[in-house]
Amino acid sequence: MNPKELAGKKAAEYVKPGMKIGLGTGSTAFYAIHALGTKVKEGLNITCFPTSQASEELAKSLHIPLMAHHEVHRLDITIDGADEVDPSKNLIKGGGGALLREKIVGAITDLYLIIIDDSKKVERLGSFSVPVEVVPYAWQVTAGHIQELDADTTLRESDDGFFVTDNGNYILDSDFGLIKNVAELEVKLNQIPGVVCNGLFIDMADYIICGHSNGDLEVY
Amino acid sequence: MNPKELAGKKAAEYVKPGMKIGLGTGSTAFYAIHALGTKVKEGLNITCFPTSQASEELAKSLHIPLMAHHEVHRLDITIDGADEVDPSKNLIKGGGGALLREKIVGAITDLYLIIIDDSKKVERLGSFSVPVEVVPYAWQVTAGHIQELDADTTLRESDDGFFVTDNGNYILDSDFGLIKNVAELEVKLNQIPGVVCNGLFIDMADYIICGHSNGDLEVY
Repeated sequence: MNPKELAGKKAAEYVKPGMKIGLGTGSTAFYAIHALGTKVKEGLNITCFPTSQASEELAKSLHIPLMAHHEVHRLDITIDGADEVDPSKNLIKGGGGALLREKIVGAITDLYLIIIDDSKKVERLGSFSVPVEVVPYAWQVTAGHIQELDADTTLRESDDGFFVTDNGNYILDSDFGLIKNVAELEVKLNQIPGVVCNGLFIDMADYIICGHSNGDLEVY
Repeated sequence: MNPKELAGKKAAEYVKPGMKIGLGTGSTAFYAIHALGTKVKEGLNITCFPTSQASEELAKSLHIPLMAHHEVHRLDITIDGADEVDPSKNLIKGGGGALLREKIVGAITDLYLIIIDDSKKVERLGSFSVPVEVVPYAWQVTAGHIQELDADTTLRESDDGFFVTDNGNYILDSDFGLIKNVAELEVKLNQIPGVVCNGLFIDMADYIICGHSNGDLEVY
């Protein structure tokens, strides 16, 4: 079993009957959603809330019951991936572009499980550029403010032009180098007019479930 | 002359040839834009950047030269209205729904002029509900976070459903009562996932130009 699948299946073990579950986005969450699909098929009664159109489609294809936006107030567990995880369980997320919905969902979750393979563990966040979701209006101005925080910014592209999030916004992948104070940077980014969300998830994760290439599984 | 017109015309006097000017939105900015239109007609050479589709259309109808988004880096002056102004020149803005674009423009302006009539002066901000722009996705969850900051929230409506901003978002008019610490609240609102922008403009205004009903004009 590959390390992502290992972590995804382990996370699915935390899910109990009757729970409300947030479904993350990305290659590791993919395995968790599949594991939940198998449990639902075996009779597990849960309702889920996806963080992206991609996860929603996957969940539907596996017949996982979903709840509507207006029904969501608290979630028992959310299972999601990350692009980097530091020893304090702070995260960089948003490589897949779903950072805002993931942050909204993470913020109302009682037990926030992050599933990764060991390539995502770092001593300090920042080798992976921080995704920053910005409104399209005057995005160059917003990029200028981020650059004033000592970052190089790259407007994310897709096959057919600029990458557009599920919320209709752009993403500036922002390279700050290794970040000294992640909590401070997270607040500074949010204070910039035009920034909708940033990919620093500070003090949100409860457990990291990490699959290793040698088959070991680590939970901390 | 009514107090709004008085303030708008006074603000236009600050504008010099060659300047780049941000154009606000609303009933008082309307008069300033008209005053600038008259100056342009008389030969004043300026380029302007509007904060809303409404201001853009008004400026175009007056033949005021406009600049494109990608040309905007700094503005010499922005002239805009406000819904409330406190003695420290902190503002509540966004009654017209253009708060995000107004904040983006205000943040790159050297001389930020706020034009009001005397009904907008308050000892403490908060009688006017703070407009908070939020993404439509799971807006009920975002409303819940704002309510946890001791506010009553009302989703703004328009004639044909929910009010939608120029950026495709919703507005939660959030009544905090009289606000004790406006700077702290501004940061707390920005930290909520799903909040795009809030109508507290802290330490941004350079001068308040206030027209009084008796014809007096006050600049501070």
